[in-house]
Amino acid sequence: MCYNDLPRNLENSMEQFGSGPLVDEAERTALYRIIALRRDCRHFTPGSPLANAQLERLLHAAHQAPSVGLMQPWRFMRLSTPEWRARLAPLVEAERQATAQALGERGAEFLRLKVEGIRDCAELLAIILAPDDGTIFGRRSMPREMAWASAACAVQNLWLAARAENLGLGWVSMFDPDALAQELGLPAGATPFGLLCLGPVPAFYEAPMLEQAGWRKRSPLHEFLWEPSRPLPTPGS
Amino acid sequence: MCYNDLPRNLENSMEQFGSGPLVDEAERTALYRIIALRRDCRHFTPGSPLANAQLERLLHAAHQAPSVGLMQPWRFMRLSTPEWRARLAPLVEAERQATAQALGERGAEFLRLKVEGIRDCAELLAIILAPDDGTIFGRRSMPREMAWASAACAVQNLWLAARAENLGLGWVSMFDPDALAQELGLPAGATPFGLLCLGPVPAFYEAPMLEQAGWRKRSPLHEFLWEPSRPLPTPGS
Repeated sequence: MCYNDLPRNLENSMEQFGSGPLVDEAERTALYRIIALRRDCRHFTPGSPLANAQLERLLHAAHQAPSVGLMQPWRFMRLSTPEWRARLAPLVEAERQATAQALGERGAEFLRLKVEGIRDCAELLAIILAPDDGTIFGRRSMPREMAWASAACAVQNLWLAARAENLGLGWVSMFDPDALAQELGLPAGATPFGLLCLGPVPAFYEAPMLEQAGWRKRSPLHEFLWEPSRPLPTPGS
Repeated sequence: MCYNDLPRNLENSMEQFGSGPLVDEAERTALYRIIALRRDCRHFTPGSPLANAQLERLLHAAHQAPSVGLMQPWRFMRLSTPEWRARLAPLVEAERQATAQALGERGAEFLRLKVEGIRDCAELLAIILAPDDGTIFGRRSMPREMAWASAACAVQNLWLAARAENLGLGWVSMFDPDALAQELGLPAGATPFGLLCLGPVPAFYEAPMLEQAGWRKRSPLHEFLWEPSRPLPTPGS
């Protein structure tokens, strides 16, 4: 990198960026449709692994996510062999049981829900937070939060891309991260963030499965719009 | 919710879900294009607020994000008045100066970068994490991480939707979250997660602005694909 070439007044030299291409109405409609159809999938159609080209498209979509300070903290592991599934499923099962205990009176109801498709999905991936690279830009005051946020944006890109490929994806977060890190042999400072079940599904849920199963309901958007609670200063004061 | 109606073997009753509609090739191409064109924007074209209908479409896209245990931890505030911008800009400026200090020898270079468009963007929003609602499902072992991940997925939906509307979005994370929470008068336990600059831009960057400005480069996908480092068990052992 040549620092001498840095534009001194970047805000006044937008012409260097060129004009971005426009997104048209049909493309916009497609995005909104895919966002609406995306689901957290736990029911998969067992079958062959994905073609490498398709898996690469999906990971490339994830890799185009924004990241704070361009830190790109995400790492991916492909864990689709029967051996890896057999090693990881007990970790998830242990956490499922611990969750049922913690849920108390809803524990039995919880245990009747299907919460993951680790053994059935065509591909099993892990998303991992890389050891902290010391990025300060944009995360001095919230270092962990911003690393996680960046990695989550990558997963959301992957999720939408999977839906666009008519594949389901389920983000499994039921595990002890330290135990999973050890099982995967991660380097010090790396943290598993999710096990991603990916592949063909018998059908996409019409609503989130937890809602269809009566576990919990979504709330309407207007309840999520807050007004700042402090009065505005009197104009001119 | 009626718990008696819960299907006892959800995994064996997929027919209840109906079949999800297919996404076609043109829609898939549109999604990949929008993912590729999305940028973290810091240069905005000052102007009128967005039409309410457009802002609602964008927030609705955010609100369709996945969330762990359906907790939907995101909240949004619209802070687009000149008064709010004037109150919040100094918080960001203070963090910008603190970042420059922390960066040491690259501090001066950092200060030449444009890092936010708070005063110029058509709309200024805050995304806020709601006080913890006690959700256990999917986050017993990673409670804070999974709340942040869910909120970040909402921002990524909003980001892609904004790009599809040919609007820029910049996620500003340069602030002291406690100071911002106080300034916004948030209830106890709520945490600001980002200030979102949203609106028309003079142009979309062809590459991430930090890369165009020579700050940092993205790395190619293949460097992000890890192999599990522990040997697999010998088959049959």
